[in-house]
Amino acid sequence: MSGLFGGTFARGGATAAVSDAAWFRALLEVEAALARSAARLGLVSETAAATVTTVCADPARLDLATVVARAADAGNPVPPLVRALQEAVGEDAARAVHVGATSQDILDTALLLLARNAIAAIDADLAGAAGAAARLAGVHRDDVVMGRTLMQQALPTTFGLKAAGWLAGLDGARLRLAEVVASLPVQYGGAAGTLVASSGSGVALRSALATELGLADTAAPWHTMRLPIADLAGALGATAGVLGTIAVDVVLMAQTEVAEVSESGESRGGSSAMPHKRNPVAAISARACARRAPGLVATLFAAMEQEHERAAGAWHSEWPTLTDLLSTVGSAASWLAESLAGLRPDVDRMAATVASARDPELAGALAEALTPTLGRGAAHDAAADASREAVASGRPLREVLAERTDVDVHTLLAAGPDVGEAGAQVDAVLADHRRLTEGTQ
Amino acid sequence: MSGLFGGTFARGGATAAVSDAAWFRALLEVEAALARSAARLGLVSETAAATVTTVCADPARLDLATVVARAADAGNPVPPLVRALQEAVGEDAARAVHVGATSQDILDTALLLLARNAIAAIDADLAGAAGAAARLAGVHRDDVVMGRTLMQQALPTTFGLKAAGWLAGLDGARLRLAEVVASLPVQYGGAAGTLVASSGSGVALRSALATELGLADTAAPWHTMRLPIADLAGALGATAGVLGTIAVDVVLMAQTEVAEVSESGESRGGSSAMPHKRNPVAAISARACARRAPGLVATLFAAMEQEHERAAGAWHSEWPTLTDLLSTVGSAASWLAESLAGLRPDVDRMAATVASARDPELAGALAEALTPTLGRGAAHDAAADASREAVASGRPLREVLAERTDVDVHTLLAAGPDVGEAGAQVDAVLADHRRLTEGTQ
Amino acid sequence: MSGLFGGTFARGGATAAVSDAAWFRALLEVEAALARSAARLGLVSETAAATVTTVCADPARLDLATVVARAADAGNPVPPLVRALQEAVGEDAARAVHVGATSQDILDTALLLLARNAIAAIDADLAGAAGAAARLAGVHRDDVVMGRTLMQQALPTTFGLKAAGWLAGLDGARLRLAEVVASLPVQYGGAAGTLVASSGSGVALRSALATELGLADTAAPWHTMRLPIADLAGALGATAGVLGTIAVDVVLMAQTEVAEVSESGESRGGSSAMPHKRNPVAAISARACARRAPGLVATLFAAMEQEHERAAGAWHSEWPTLTDLLSTVGSAASWLAESLAGLRPDVDRMAATVASARDPELAGALAEALTPTLGRGAAHDAAADASREAVASGRPLREVLAERTDVDVHTLLAAGPDVGEAGAQVDAVLADHRRLTEGTQ
Amino acid sequence: MSGLFGGTFARGGATAAVSDAAWFRALLEVEAALARSAARLGLVSETAAATVTTVCADPARLDLATVVARAADAGNPVPPLVRALQEAVGEDAARAVHVGATSQDILDTALLLLARNAIAAIDADLAGAAGAAARLAGVHRDDVVMGRTLMQQALPTTFGLKAAGWLAGLDGARLRLAEVVASLPVQYGGAAGTLVASSGSGVALRSALATELGLADTAAPWHTMRLPIADLAGALGATAGVLGTIAVDVVLMAQTEVAEVSESGESRGGSSAMPHKRNPVAAISARACARRAPGLVATLFAAMEQEHERAAGAWHSEWPTLTDLLSTVGSAASWLAESLAGLRPDVDRMAATVASARDPELAGALAEALTPTLGRGAAHDAAADASREAVASGRPLREVLAERTDVDVHTLLAAGPDVGEAGAQVDAVLADHRRLTEGTQ
Repeated sequence: MSGLFGGTFARGGATAAVSDAAWFRALLEVEAALARSAARLGLVSETAAATVTTVCADPARLDLATVVARAADAGNPVPPLVRALQEAVGEDAARAVHVGATSQDILDTALLLLARNAIAAIDADLAGAAGAAARLAGVHRDDVVMGRTLMQQALPTTFGLKAAGWLAGLDGARLRLAEVVASLPVQYGGAAGTLVASSGSGVALRSALATELGLADTAAPWHTMRLPIADLAGALGATAGVLGTIAVDVVLMAQTEVAEVSESGESRGGSSAMPHKRNPVAAISARACARRAPGLVATLFAAMEQEHERAAGAWHSEWPTLTDLLSTVGSAASWLAESLAGLRPDVDRMAATVASARDPELAGALAEALTPTLGRGAAHDAAADASREAVASGRPLREVLAERTDVDVHTLLAAGPDVGEAGAQVDAVLADHRRLTEGTQ
Repeated sequence: MSGLFGGTFARGGATAAVSDAAWFRALLEVEAALARSAARLGLVSETAAATVTTVCADPARLDLATVVARAADAGNPVPPLVRALQEAVGEDAARAVHVGATSQDILDTALLLLARNAIAAIDADLAGAAGAAARLAGVHRDDVVMGRTLMQQALPTTFGLKAAGWLAGLDGARLRLAEVVASLPVQYGGAAGTLVASSGSGVALRSALATELGLADTAAPWHTMRLPIADLAGALGATAGVLGTIAVDVVLMAQTEVAEVSESGESRGGSSAMPHKRNPVAAISARACARRAPGLVATLFAAMEQEHERAAGAWHSEWPTLTDLLSTVGSAASWLAESLAGLRPDVDRMAATVASARDPELAGALAEALTPTLGRGAAHDAAADASREAVASGRPLREVLAERTDVDVHTLLAAGPDVGEAGAQVDAVLADHRRLTEGTQ
Repeated sequence: MSGLFGGTFARGGATAAVSDAAWFRALLEVEAALARSAARLGLVSETAAATVTTVCADPARLDLATVVARAADAGNPVPPLVRALQEAVGEDAARAVHVGATSQDILDTALLLLARNAIAAIDADLAGAAGAAARLAGVHRDDVVMGRTLMQQALPTTFGLKAAGWLAGLDGARLRLAEVVASLPVQYGGAAGTLVASSGSGVALRSALATELGLADTAAPWHTMRLPIADLAGALGATAGVLGTIAVDVVLMAQTEVAEVSESGESRGGSSAMPHKRNPVAAISARACARRAPGLVATLFAAMEQEHERAAGAWHSEWPTLTDLLSTVGSAASWLAESLAGLRPDVDRMAATVASARDPELAGALAEALTPTLGRGAAHDAAADASREAVASGRPLREVLAERTDVDVHTLLAAGPDVGEAGAQVDAVLADHRRLTEGTQ
Repeated sequence: MSGLFGGTFARGGATAAVSDAAWFRALLEVEAALARSAARLGLVSETAAATVTTVCADPARLDLATVVARAADAGNPVPPLVRALQEAVGEDAARAVHVGATSQDILDTALLLLARNAIAAIDADLAGAAGAAARLAGVHRDDVVMGRTLMQQALPTTFGLKAAGWLAGLDGARLRLAEVVASLPVQYGGAAGTLVASSGSGVALRSALATELGLADTAAPWHTMRLPIADLAGALGATAGVLGTIAVDVVLMAQTEVAEVSESGESRGGSSAMPHKRNPVAAISARACARRAPGLVATLFAAMEQEHERAAGAWHSEWPTLTDLLSTVGSAASWLAESLAGLRPDVDRMAATVASARDPELAGALAEALTPTLGRGAAHDAAADASREAVASGRPLREVLAERTDVDVHTLLAAGPDVGEAGAQVDAVLADHRRLTEGTQ
């Protein structure tokens, strides 16, 4: 992502977590862990493994420019990196480098380490957004707002319940990401997956490597069976969807005609042609970032079709796609955390809209009131007729209803907006949130 | 899916599980369960609920043609279905119909029931495919086959390990689908999600409905927070990817020049122009079905951006997309089960290819043999040089090597194809498979 | 598409144009045209070709059930169809059937015929929508409406210009579709593309077949070079995008709080829980249909990677995907034509919103007025400051401005809403539309 | 794209054409052209326009770091860029900056200039690839190669015809890109599209700006009607598909077991674990790059749904997506040009494969030979029976046929491989190519 648009699309910690520097760290972290694991199993000396670890901890000691220059020719950066590492550690320790591994072992494992780190950054912003949503849900637990279905005013709900819905989505996304991260496996199989170059200790070495890196062990390599990538794609796509649907709610509620929320960003949202305008830039940007996700997710799922023991192209296509996905979902999370943290609900406006929109609710109440007498179908029709008559004549529905002798309009009007069990549901979502928060801290 | 192409793309049980008839059954199953749940909480009479249940069990008693005719006008089929159901049960029991619900409550819940049923059908075919893969892995545990990376012959592996890789993918997909199915939630919130029309018992009613249908309960409705749909999309997309990557292996191994497997289907694969040809129709068809998935998955993730309390279009777009996804993944699973069940490996051909391709392996062995003397980097170069010389001169590598005095070619040649720990890995995958199979039966 | 949701997603003529019956007609139309072309070149007798043509014109004479039953086994329906056709025409005329062709020749050519027919149906609905948009643009050429950027009120425009924008999009989509249809090529190459079974007259036969069917000729077969499919995918995806963006404008303008347009459909938009609600069902449905397109388009582009002389799966995946795409774009067009044909603009409401929103416009005017004195940057800042002060204090901007001595508020207020060259642009779009309409009639 | 993977995915001139520096140049080119156009119409002084042009030609005179820093807050980089430009040109010339424009006018127009430049770079590589394909088609016009359908050997064709098929695809993609580039329109409408701030000369100014930049004029702005973006997406997606399908042919033909082509890259394709391996890195990389396209294309089509006069997110999502698409298609083109330029066909191997595979062809010839006697259907069955018998008995088909008295095997065998009208088709494609090449030079 270029710097010019990086402020929008390369925001938050996830982008840094998939940078070139992070890639080198991760690739070397895997090589170092592999050397230590091999030493533990007696395949190489502890001294050699220690040397490898020391060098891997300091990428500046390697000729990374050459690695970059040769990566494309080799098809991936691991062959030149291994060469550079072997040169840097010296002849003796070189035997402890890349023990029994193939390039894909190192690259796949490093990619999952990157993903784990990036998701940690994403999760921090999701947690920030969830915290803000929880506060909004708690503070506005009982503040009425017009519920809207198919973009039409429907029945009242509470802003607390809207925020609780956002919270449930954010927490749900966090849970899924956590499950995926917890199951990310090590990759280790050697060139054709047989562990042939691992001196008969390949299975044990894979297990040790998994332990060393905090990854799950596997019964066999997954060089061309890409479920771990699919899991990441699915969970990140779902996270993007959660962020996008919250962002669109903010954007819609911030519409001039609705004006129920605004973003507090002071320096944001200026227009070159319209100095008066204040755009909800954070929510808009979150939405922009989130919308990049489904196409990237599709690329990763399409890339699952991989040939034989190592794919000719599909594997490679995962690298920029998964890193872009991590980066754009992280940016969306960062933007949404900012949007919700500074969100300013206008509860008076919300209440006023509900009050002025009692007509629709009246129609619903009318249908209920008439059901014992007329039956549900006919009552439904009667309410619809009254509504149509009100609209057609430009009169309030209550006037139309007042002409009917079978309806007690006063009783219908007496009740304030009925938000049913909105409060109890807010409480339930907040209780779930506290459990999750306490569980992860 | 039209009948003309239905044999290919609407195969297996999943398609039937998402048919119109299945939709009606599911919608009515939800309405019946809701009536019974309401009766359990005392909101309606047991008698009324029983009447509703009886009618719902017999869709033929409803005027479904009218429901179909009116579905588009209503935006979805639930309003006319509720009307038809109320008419069918009579005035008294009508009060027990659709208690406190909005159309989306019924439709979403029914969609998840459909998905559950379709996935059961998919799982049956996945289990069939997994069983076949397990048999292949066991029978051919030690039969060598050339491993191929980037579509080039690399090092030997075993056909057992290839099949074990397929098995691990199939079982992994099954586990993910099972997790998703186990977490599918009920949808119930009423028009704006407040449960306002549920007589104060909405939360309890939702819980009862979940129990009644064997779905998970939720703290709040998820009308516009579509994580359950995203979970299905992700798991189905992953399943398609697993099926596609196995299918492409079969197609590649069945190439005339490779000829390591063939499909046994007698009546299959005839060509109108080439009567001699025998195409691996089942694997090709599995691949065709699987390739439809990523785009459908992207549509579902993109549809997560849903407005306010009910989305104006994105929600609707899920219906054909998720049902198509279930149908095409089910078809892919059906085809692959057939392909693997009848797969005929030619182990002699596999072994012959490995034997004639010892040159590459020799180069690898050479690099290993020279490493103690030359160091890893130089040894690697020496092996590559020898290979190039062999290719350039058209001589076998062993002849080129024989000219070197520092390499004992006889020793290098003595060993048979080394497949490392292929067998142990096959055993580990089979053990996992048995645990899964016993666990789910 | 199932009947239950067919009213929404299988609407308009395009769905019928890709039905099974239409497929059979198209496949037989290609076979008949091939027979006639072969006769013209003297490869078969005129009598035989006439017999083939006669039988192909009456699919009922063929055993199509058997064709359907055997299609999947053969990998595609052409081999059993050719067999059925040969049986139906008798031994003599059988030599005039499928001359020199491979299954893909017939199927690809038939698919393009289907697409051409479906696009004719789509175009009819697009023309209807364009006509409605043109009427709206003409009638409301000078009716002001608030322009909205980033979902915030910005500066006034006219409803005529909004409708002209829709019209320009619809006409642009029609032009693209027409270009693609005009360039659709015949497919004819025989089994491996060499025309080997065409008695040395293959190139001439392809040319004759193209003429017979009104398709473009080609220099070589395009069995695995799928540009014609990509062209269709691109143009249909663009059409869906045009329909979707118009639909979202309708949905947003129909929001209760905006209420600038409504759909006139009498029987539409009822809610089971909210009898008072009137949803813009046609626009919502158009949006739902349009949103299915990008994923289907991606599948078709991904399917372009086809192997050797005939692809093993990717080719097959085009059939349901392209037909679904035609069907859903056709449905979107049908819905949008209905939405626009019955759209009821509320010009008084539009004008009232503009009037009450003069504040933003005032800020723009203020910036312009101050620019000569303060310079553009400072003038911009001053206007933004005044706007913020007005919002913060809850006062109209005009009051805030009245306190400044350097601004002549009266002059600023005197002008009505300035819509610049909106009218001239409407006229230009309508002129383009007339040229297109006259050109195509 | 990071440097680490840039050698693979950010290759060729297209990536440079969409860099930050290129963006700044394009944005300033549009501002300069707008100033000059305004001067031509007398809206600003020629002196001021000249100053603006001079400053715009030297981005180093602007404080671009501040522009980058403020771009995200403003929602896009144009507001801070305009401010920086106004400061750089001084108060007098500032009036000639951004005349009547809104940010989107500048950004959209600049994006299309970027796309035009990037496509010029892509086209150069496509031309290189096409030239190489044309040479291959010409040189190998009559060299036989086995045609393969559904990954099975089918009938002979020529390598020339395969290369001609590639050539036709490359030239087709170039034509489409050229058409799209020729139709790219200017964007100019002001904040709400009314040209209100253009002093009554907006339509004329747009026309002048289009002329100045060599873009097409438009009847109205297309701020939320994104057909030009869709056109780019479609043509670039098609180009990726063409590149991918050629790349997969190369990869498949380079398989060890097929070995009909190899890439000549000397330093390429080394494996860290397998020094003997030579991978077709360029074709593999082309395929990897091409596979990123369909998902990006889908994102752009999905982004067509844009609200009112300026979209809240969808517009923004186009920037990284279209630039990534240009970059990855350019990289694919660069790789494929390299692959084809250095492709080494092994015509002896091709011929040997055809010779050893005469059996299948014999079956085809048998079917033809028997047709006059048995009728087409029975002849077809007889040939299939003979093939099955040959396979089942492990004998050559010719032996099986020799037992039949109704077939003259000698005559069948006498003919060499029949490649029909392959040569004539190669000539036709090459003639088309020459016309295109001469036309564009």
